[in-house]
Amino acid sequence: MLLSVLYIIGITAEAMTGALSAGRRKMDWFGVMLVASATAIGGGTVRDILLGHYPLGWVKNPEFLAITCIAGVLTTGLAKWVIKLKGLFIRLDALGLIVFSIIGTKVAMGMGHHAMICMVSALVTGVFGGLLRDLICRQTPLVLHEELYASVALVSSGLYLGLLELGVNDVTATISTLIVGYLLRMAAVRFKWRLPSFQLETEGSLH
Amino acid sequence: MLLSVLYIIGITAEAMTGALSAGRRKMDWFGVMLVASATAIGGGTVRDILLGHYPLGWVKNPEFLAITCIAGVLTTGLAKWVIKLKGLFIRLDALGLIVFSIIGTKVAMGMGHHAMICMVSALVTGVFGGLLRDLICRQTPLVLHEELYASVALVSSGLYLGLLELGVNDVTATISTLIVGYLLRMAAVRFKWRLPSFQLETEGSLH
Amino acid sequence: MLLSVLYIIGITAEAMTGALSAGRRKMDWFGVMLVASATAIGGGTVRDILLGHYPLGWVKNPEFLAITCIAGVLTTGLAKWVIKLKGLFIRLDALGLIVFSIIGTKVAMGMGHHAMICMVSALVTGVFGGLLRDLICRQTPLVLHEELYASVALVSSGLYLGLLELGVNDVTATISTLIVGYLLRMAAVRFKWRLPSFQLETEGSLH
Repeated sequence: MLLSVLYIIGITAEAMTGALSAGRRKMDWFGVMLVASATAIGGGTVRDILLGHYPLGWVKNPEFLAITCIAGVLTTGLAKWVIKLKGLFIRLDALGLIVFSIIGTKVAMGMGHHAMICMVSALVTGVFGGLLRDLICRQTPLVLHEELYASVALVSSGLYLGLLELGVNDVTATISTLIVGYLLRMAAVRFKWRLPSFQLETEGSLH
Repeated sequence: MLLSVLYIIGITAEAMTGALSAGRRKMDWFGVMLVASATAIGGGTVRDILLGHYPLGWVKNPEFLAITCIAGVLTTGLAKWVIKLKGLFIRLDALGLIVFSIIGTKVAMGMGHHAMICMVSALVTGVFGGLLRDLICRQTPLVLHEELYASVALVSSGLYLGLLELGVNDVTATISTLIVGYLLRMAAVRFKWRLPSFQLETEGSLH
Repeated sequence: MLLSVLYIIGITAEAMTGALSAGRRKMDWFGVMLVASATAIGGGTVRDILLGHYPLGWVKNPEFLAITCIAGVLTTGLAKWVIKLKGLFIRLDALGLIVFSIIGTKVAMGMGHHAMICMVSALVTGVFGGLLRDLICRQTPLVLHEELYASVALVSSGLYLGLLELGVNDVTATISTLIVGYLLRMAAVRFKWRLPSFQLETEGSLH
């Protein structure tokens, strides 16, 4: 229940950030709806395709798709305010990341997969929406350069799995993961924590 | 039956436009066949994957794939004529869009999905081939900038669904949708109808 | 058994070349693992999704994913040596291509598909990993320009199918295909054999 409410907040916020990316590429309303939806529900879609988990969430519940399309189009009129509320959106995005990670973990667990696949499922749910957004808008994917993002999805998923393993009940595990994951992501943004990066000169090509 | 003939004309025409895009990227014959096939049958493939509708059309009927590969390779020899026949190809592309939209609607209806999902299915079938072509050839997707295209797929699907809902028989609904959809698309090209677009300055980034 | 050992060698080598591409894009460790895994097991993943062949290989055997992630991260420390061993990697990549092609052919055969679909399955398994790597790293896909690559996958698959059709046993057909396919690919690299390419002036656009 809590997770459903947070999920709707999460996809709405993600759809709005997706719409801004579409706007920077001067897309029309259809493009805005496409990028908004891909950003918000693309991660879950890729996860379900990889796991063979049909029907997809938004095919079963088309209202989720309606929400992301409407949020996308509304953003075209509210862009100035959305940008002013940048701090709020960073918080909502952090919250969405943890919610998506927990949902991704639960879906793979429900299918009886290995813990490592549950964590990959969390990762895909949390991260691939942004990857799709950047592919469609032809930007070098942000999640591959930025402050800890994918790592937060993995840690959150591992924490949630670990708490369940220790016998903690689902509600407590969910709320604990939400709090710890959110604080970890906000700390990563605040203190610019990054994974080590790998830089190779172009001459170092195998091709 | 009519739909099958029009479908084959549609995928042939789409494959030839895909091959021209590959030619502008100086691809080899394999690249030409890949882009031709992705353009012509990529939309239906993405639709079937999203809906979990297996086996895919071209896996069940490999001759469709053979047609797109052959059309692609023939285009490398006929490029000058294809380009001279630009007007014909715009008409065939418009026809293909409506055929793909009706087929997409039918597939989702046959699986018992909500009307909104049937329209999304039409949209994906009609539009994602071109999106894939532009992603592989690294062009900013045309359907996100151009005259009404995705909208025509949605309107055609909605019209077809509405006519069936009103008790019109399938043949009449199909032919009516083909005519109205085709005229709508040609009018959009002729009069340069576009959706409003959303332009955002780069400084307006959340990132 | 032989095929399993060669498969693990193949995905390790592919993961390392993927990691080098990620390094040229200055990605972080997560990006390195993503590109390494997409390069090594992305082809098989796309094949299984197209054929509806679930669960995916790495979902069933998460250790394959672990291998590609570890190989990717190790490459960040070993990049100089990997580049010095360029000749070895070209050989391992050629071997991997044939192994992937045989495995792709077997999967489609096991599902009872037409010979043409078995060859497409080989092609997708062998080629799409590199395509995904180049899409994520935003390079024009190498397999669409380079020496015979996709063609080697097709020929290997056709040879394997033909030998089985002639009543040759599976082990002999596999080993023969490995040898012929490997020599064909190495000859293509050595003598720069290419498919004819299709070049079109930009003015020749339909759009």
